[in-house]
Amino acid sequence: MKGFGMHAINDVGWIEKEAPKAGPLDAILRPLAVAPCSSDTHISHGGGGPMTDRILGHESVGEVVEVGNLVKSFKPGDKVIVNCCTPDWEAPLLQDRFDNNAHDRGFTASFKFCMQKDGVFAEYYHVNNADANLFPLPDDISIEDALMTTDMMSTGFHAVENAEIHYGDNVVVFGIGPVGLMAVAGSALMGCGRLFAIGTRPNCVALAKEYGATDIVSYKEGDIVQQILDLNHGQVDKVILAGGGGESFAQALQLVRPNGVISNVNFLDPMDNISFSTILWGLGMSNVSFRCGFCPGGARRIERLVRMIQADRVHPGKLLNYKFEGFDKIEDAFHLMDTKPKDLIKPYVLI
Amino acid sequence: MKGFGMHAINDVGWIEKEAPKAGPLDAILRPLAVAPCSSDTHISHGGGGPMTDRILGHESVGEVVEVGNLVKSFKPGDKVIVNCCTPDWEAPLLQDRFDNNAHDRGFTASFKFCMQKDGVFAEYYHVNNADANLFPLPDDISIEDALMTTDMMSTGFHAVENAEIHYGDNVVVFGIGPVGLMAVAGSALMGCGRLFAIGTRPNCVALAKEYGATDIVSYKEGDIVQQILDLNHGQVDKVILAGGGGESFAQALQLVRPNGVISNVNFLDPMDNISFSTILWGLGMSNVSFRCGFCPGGARRIERLVRMIQADRVHPGKLLNYKFEGFDKIEDAFHLMDTKPKDLIKPYVLI
Amino acid sequence: MKGFGMHAINDVGWIEKEAPKAGPLDAILRPLAVAPCSSDTHISHGGGGPMTDRILGHESVGEVVEVGNLVKSFKPGDKVIVNCCTPDWEAPLLQDRFDNNAHDRGFTASFKFCMQKDGVFAEYYHVNNADANLFPLPDDISIEDALMTTDMMSTGFHAVENAEIHYGDNVVVFGIGPVGLMAVAGSALMGCGRLFAIGTRPNCVALAKEYGATDIVSYKEGDIVQQILDLNHGQVDKVILAGGGGESFAQALQLVRPNGVISNVNFLDPMDNISFSTILWGLGMSNVSFRCGFCPGGARRIERLVRMIQADRVHPGKLLNYKFEGFDKIEDAFHLMDTKPKDLIKPYVLI
Amino acid sequence: MKGFGMHAINDVGWIEKEAPKAGPLDAILRPLAVAPCSSDTHISHGGGGPMTDRILGHESVGEVVEVGNLVKSFKPGDKVIVNCCTPDWEAPLLQDRFDNNAHDRGFTASFKFCMQKDGVFAEYYHVNNADANLFPLPDDISIEDALMTTDMMSTGFHAVENAEIHYGDNVVVFGIGPVGLMAVAGSALMGCGRLFAIGTRPNCVALAKEYGATDIVSYKEGDIVQQILDLNHGQVDKVILAGGGGESFAQALQLVRPNGVISNVNFLDPMDNISFSTILWGLGMSNVSFRCGFCPGGARRIERLVRMIQADRVHPGKLLNYKFEGFDKIEDAFHLMDTKPKDLIKPYVLI
Repeated sequence: MKGFGMHAINDVGWIEKEAPKAGPLDAILRPLAVAPCSSDTHISHGGGGPMTDRILGHESVGEVVEVGNLVKSFKPGDKVIVNCCTPDWEAPLLQDRFDNNAHDRGFTASFKFCMQKDGVFAEYYHVNNADANLFPLPDDISIEDALMTTDMMSTGFHAVENAEIHYGDNVVVFGIGPVGLMAVAGSALMGCGRLFAIGTRPNCVALAKEYGATDIVSYKEGDIVQQILDLNHGQVDKVILAGGGGESFAQALQLVRPNGVISNVNFLDPMDNISFSTILWGLGMSNVSFRCGFCPGGARRIERLVRMIQADRVHPGKLLNYKFEGFDKIEDAFHLMDTKPKDLIKPYVLI
Repeated sequence: MKGFGMHAINDVGWIEKEAPKAGPLDAILRPLAVAPCSSDTHISHGGGGPMTDRILGHESVGEVVEVGNLVKSFKPGDKVIVNCCTPDWEAPLLQDRFDNNAHDRGFTASFKFCMQKDGVFAEYYHVNNADANLFPLPDDISIEDALMTTDMMSTGFHAVENAEIHYGDNVVVFGIGPVGLMAVAGSALMGCGRLFAIGTRPNCVALAKEYGATDIVSYKEGDIVQQILDLNHGQVDKVILAGGGGESFAQALQLVRPNGVISNVNFLDPMDNISFSTILWGLGMSNVSFRCGFCPGGARRIERLVRMIQADRVHPGKLLNYKFEGFDKIEDAFHLMDTKPKDLIKPYVLI
Repeated sequence: MKGFGMHAINDVGWIEKEAPKAGPLDAILRPLAVAPCSSDTHISHGGGGPMTDRILGHESVGEVVEVGNLVKSFKPGDKVIVNCCTPDWEAPLLQDRFDNNAHDRGFTASFKFCMQKDGVFAEYYHVNNADANLFPLPDDISIEDALMTTDMMSTGFHAVENAEIHYGDNVVVFGIGPVGLMAVAGSALMGCGRLFAIGTRPNCVALAKEYGATDIVSYKEGDIVQQILDLNHGQVDKVILAGGGGESFAQALQLVRPNGVISNVNFLDPMDNISFSTILWGLGMSNVSFRCGFCPGGARRIERLVRMIQADRVHPGKLLNYKFEGFDKIEDAFHLMDTKPKDLIKPYVLI
Repeated sequence: MKGFGMHAINDVGWIEKEAPKAGPLDAILRPLAVAPCSSDTHISHGGGGPMTDRILGHESVGEVVEVGNLVKSFKPGDKVIVNCCTPDWEAPLLQDRFDNNAHDRGFTASFKFCMQKDGVFAEYYHVNNADANLFPLPDDISIEDALMTTDMMSTGFHAVENAEIHYGDNVVVFGIGPVGLMAVAGSALMGCGRLFAIGTRPNCVALAKEYGATDIVSYKEGDIVQQILDLNHGQVDKVILAGGGGESFAQALQLVRPNGVISNVNFLDPMDNISFSTILWGLGMSNVSFRCGFCPGGARRIERLVRMIQADRVHPGKLLNYKFEGFDKIEDAFHLMDTKPKDLIKPYVLI
C-alpha cells in the first residue's frame, strides 16, 4: 500500500509498505478525511527523533475494513472518528482516576501514530484497542467537525481543563493557531469572563472573536504584558500558553494573580529552556501553579466533544479553511502545513 | 420610613419603621431596582416561620447613602449590586476553602435579609460587611442583568457547580422557572452536551432554548423519565432539580447513570419527605451523589457573574418580563409573583 | 473441579464443575488464600437474585496456572493479589477521569465474581483482563494483609475518599465490622481529627481504637446522635455509613454540619427505603452531600493499598481473627461468616 | 514597651516602642511562647526589603489583654493560638473557594507580622480581625504543639495539600528542616506510600523516621536522583521541595512521573533563577504540575491542625529541641536560629 511520510529527517514523500494487520483487539481502517498537524511537520524535521520510512499523520476520520476477533463494537463498513491518542487500556497506570491517559506505559506512550508505528496518511492504518479508541461517526455532525475533535479540540480543551477555569475567570490565551483557537472556545464553554487572545493573523483573529474572545492583543501594538494589565486593570486569573517559547513563562507570571494557573499546551522546542527569576514566582510563595499536558485519548473523550458539537455549542470544523480532495492531495496539504501561509488556519483532505 | 412586608403570616402590606443605621462595617442603601422572589412570597405564607412586621425582599441594586467608619471601598452615592446572601466574613466557618459561604455561623445564616432583619423592599436598607458584600454597578451592563445576578443567576449557577458538570455531560434540568432557566444557561456555560429542560410555560420554554436547552420535555406528553430515556438512548450524566417535590428524587435516580450527580436547588416543602427505594440508589453502590445548596454570597461572587455578562456570554436580565416603575409598585410586583400568571417569568420594579 | 457455592437460594454446598479456560486477555488461578465476605452469604440468601450452581467467593490471593496469549505481565507460577472488582478496561465508560471503575458497562458490572461467573472458592478460577486486574504478591507483606486489600480495605477506603475528608475533619463512622474498621483506618490516614466509631463488639472496638478511632459510641448507652453531639459540642464534618439501615440517613443528617458529606458504603437491603423529612436536609439548602459507592477495581488500586502496608501505615490483616487451613475448610469459614458469632471480625482460609 | 527586631538590615537588637492599640476588630496580646523562624532571620538580613526598627517574630501563643468593641469571641485573659498569617477577611479576593487566603489584597498580603507591622517578639502585639484569626488554646494539648501549628505545621501541611497526595502515592521530600519534617508528617497523614526524605542532620533524620519517612537519602552517598530512582525502581508520584535552591526543580523533574506534581514550599532566594531544559518537562506535554504556596491563615486552619494533635495523630512540638525561658531569651533564641548549629531543629522561648 501507499502512504505519505518521512524517508528520513527532512526528507518526506510517498512510501510503499505492506498493509497493516489487525491483532485481536485492533482494527484496520481506510481514511475518509485526514488533516496534517504541525506535529507532523515537526516530526518530519526530526522533532520525534530519527525515523526511517515512517508514514505520518494522526488526525483522521475513517472506515473500518477489518477487526480483530475480540472487537465487539465495530465491524467492517463502520465509519468512525479516531482519537489521535489511542491508549493501551490494559496498562494499570491509566487506572488512576486523577491521571491523564496520554501516558499509558510511560511518557506520551499512548500517542502511537507516527511515534510508535505508521500514521494515518496511508491507504490503510492500524488502530489498537479499537473498542476503546474508536467512536462511531454520527450522522448529524459534519466530517469537518468530526475531524477536528481528534486532536485540535481535544488538545485545546485539555489546556482549559488544566487551567482550572471557573465561572468568571479572566483568561489570557497566548497564540491563536488551531489549538489556541480551541482553547479560546473551550474557555468560553467553561464560563470564563474577559478573554484576551494574543495573535495577529486576520483569519485567526476573526475566528477567535467568534469563539468567544473579548479582546485581541497584538505584539505589534506594544508590550503584550503591559497592554493586558492595562486593559484588565490588573492581573488575570488564568493564562493558557498555546504559542510562544520558553520566554512566555516569564510573561505569563507577570500576567497571573496569586492563586492563578498557567496552563501550557504548547509543544516546546527541545533546544529551549524554561527560565525565570524566582521573584516572578513570588519566591515560591505565590500559589501560582504551572500545569501542562498532552491531549487525552480514547473513545469517551471523543463522545464528550461530539456531544458539544451536536448541541451546537461549538464548531471546531471552522478551523479547516483549506480543503483538498483525493488521497494524493495529502502531499499538498502537508506542504501547506509546513510552510504555513499567512491566511492558513488548518488544511484537510477529503478522501 | 416605609417598607413592604408581612405584618404576620398571610398578611402583607406596607409597614412604617425607623430607618436602619450603619455599624462600623456596614452600609445603608436606598433601592434602585428590586425583584420579588418566590422565596419572599413563600416567607409571607409562613415558610420562614412566624414573623411580625418584617420588611421583605432580598434582590436589589441600590445606592449607598451611609457607610460605617471601617468601610474602605464605598461612599455615599455609589451605585452597587447587593448579593442577596451577605455573610459575616469574620466567621471562621467560612474559612474552609471547600465550603459554601451561605452558612456563616450556622445553617443559611448568611442569608440575613428577611430572615434576620428587614429586607430590601424599603426606602432604606442595611447591608452588613459592606466592603465584602457589595459590588460596584458597572456602566456597561443593564440594571436588569445586574439585578438578576443577586440571586437567580447565582443560585442557578450554584446548582450547576454542585452538579459537577464536565465537558459533554448530558444533563436534565427539572423546572424552568427563573432558577431553572439560570441552571440551563449555567450548564451550557460549563460545556454540557445534550440538555433536557422539563417545563411547559411558553415564555419559559422559549427562553430555555435561547439559554442552551437542546430538548424540551413536558409532563403533558407522557412520563418524563421514559421520554428522556428514549430521547437520550439511556441515562444521562447529571440531573439538576429546580422544581418538583420530594418525588422528583426517585425520578432523578431513574434518569442518572452510575457515577452521576443529582443536584438539588429546589426550596423543598417542610411538610414533604424525600423517600425512595434503596434499589433506585443501587443499594447504596451506584456512586450516584446527591448534592444541594444555597446560593453563595459576597462581592466576589457577583464580580464573577458580572464578568460573564460583560463578556456577552449570558444575559440573565431576560428573565425579567414584567416591569414596574416606582417604589409604590413593589406591592403590585409582589402580588404578581404570588399569583404567578401563566406568562410570568419574573417581575421587577425600577425605582 | 470442585467449588463451594450455592445450588440455589438458601442451599449452599460443594459443586462439581468443569475448570474454567482462559481467553486471550485472561488468566486462570488457583487460590492460595480466600476470605468469605458478608456479600457472599448475602448472595447465598438471594441478595444477588436467583442463581443455580454458582461458586461463591471474591476475596483471594492466588497463583497463576494459565494465561491467555495476549497477557504480557504474568505467567504460570506467579503469585498474585486479585482485586475483587475486575473491570473490562476496554469499556469506554471507564475512561472518564472522574468515574469510579466499578461500573464498566453498567451498574456494578465490573464486579464479575459470583454475579456474572463463578467465584474464587474453587480449585481454579478465572480472571478477566489479567494484566490490568492482577498485582504481584510482594515478598515483604503478609498474605493476610494482601488478602484484605482485595475488598475490605479498598471498600472502606473508598468510603473515606467519597467522604472528601480533609485535615482535621471530625468524622463519625457507623458500624465497625470489617469495612467500617477499614473506614476508620482510612479516615485516620486522611488526617481526620476526632473520629467517632459506633459499635459494641469488644474485638471490633479494640481494633477501631488501634486503627485511629478517638471515641467509641454504643447504642447501649443512649441515643447515638445525642451522645455524639454532646461529645463533639456540635455537629461533625463528615459521616460514613458502614452499617445500619435506611433509618441511619436521618441520623446522619442530624449529625453533619452544613457543607458536610454523608458517605454510604453500606450494602442496603432492597426491601428498605431511604426516607427523611426535607427539614433534616435544610429544605435542600444545607449543602450537605450524599455519596455512595462500590469498591474500585484493578491492579493499580491494589498497588496503592499495598504501598501503604509496605510503608507500615496500616495492617488490614488484623481484621482476620479466625484462621482455617485447607481448601475443604472454605465450608466452615463460610458458615462462620453466615452465623457471625459475637467475637468474629473476619475469617479466612489458607490453602 | 520592649521588642526584639531589626534596627536595620543586618542590625538586630532590642527596640523600645509604644505599645500597639486595638481597632474595633482587633486584639492586643502578650506572648506566652514564641519561636523564631528562618523567615525572621531571613528578613533581618534584608529578605523582606529595607526596614527600620521593626520588631520581628510571627510564631506565637499569647494571652489577650485588650479587644476592640466589635470582637465577639475573645476577652482579656483568654489564651490563644495565633496563626502567623492573619488575613483581612473583608477582602473579596478571599471569597473564592479555590483560593489560598494568604493573599488577601495582593501577594502574601495576609502575612502582616514583620512585613506590614511589628511582630510577636514584643511585650505586646497586635492581631487584626481577632475573631477570625485567633483560636482558643485548648487545655489538652501542650504549648509546644500549639506553637508549632502557627507556621511550621500549617506550612508543611500546605505543601502536602498542594502536592495533591492520594492514598499510596510514593513521595520525595527535599529538605528535613522544620517545614520539611512537617511535610513528611503531613504526607503520612494523607496516606502516602513510600516516603523518601532527603537530609543528613541526625536529629532531623530521627524525627523524619518517626513522622513517617520510609527512606532517608543523603547527598553524601551519591546523586540523590539516581539513588531514589534505584530505590523506587522508577519515578515517584509526587515531589515536595522544602529545601534546595532553583536547581532542585530540575532534580524534581527527573524524579516525578508523568501526571505527577512538584510542590514547592521552599522560600526561594530572590537572586536565584528557576531554569531547566524543556526536555525535562516533556516539552510541555508531561502533565507534570508545579505548585507552590504560602501557609494558609485564620482560626479555622488552626482548629483543624489542633484537632489532629488532640486525636494523637501528630505532635509537631517535637520539632522544638531547644528551649529557652524568659522574655529576654528571645535574643538568644533568635541568634541560635540564625547560626543553625548542626543539632538544632527549632528553638522556642517560654515566657
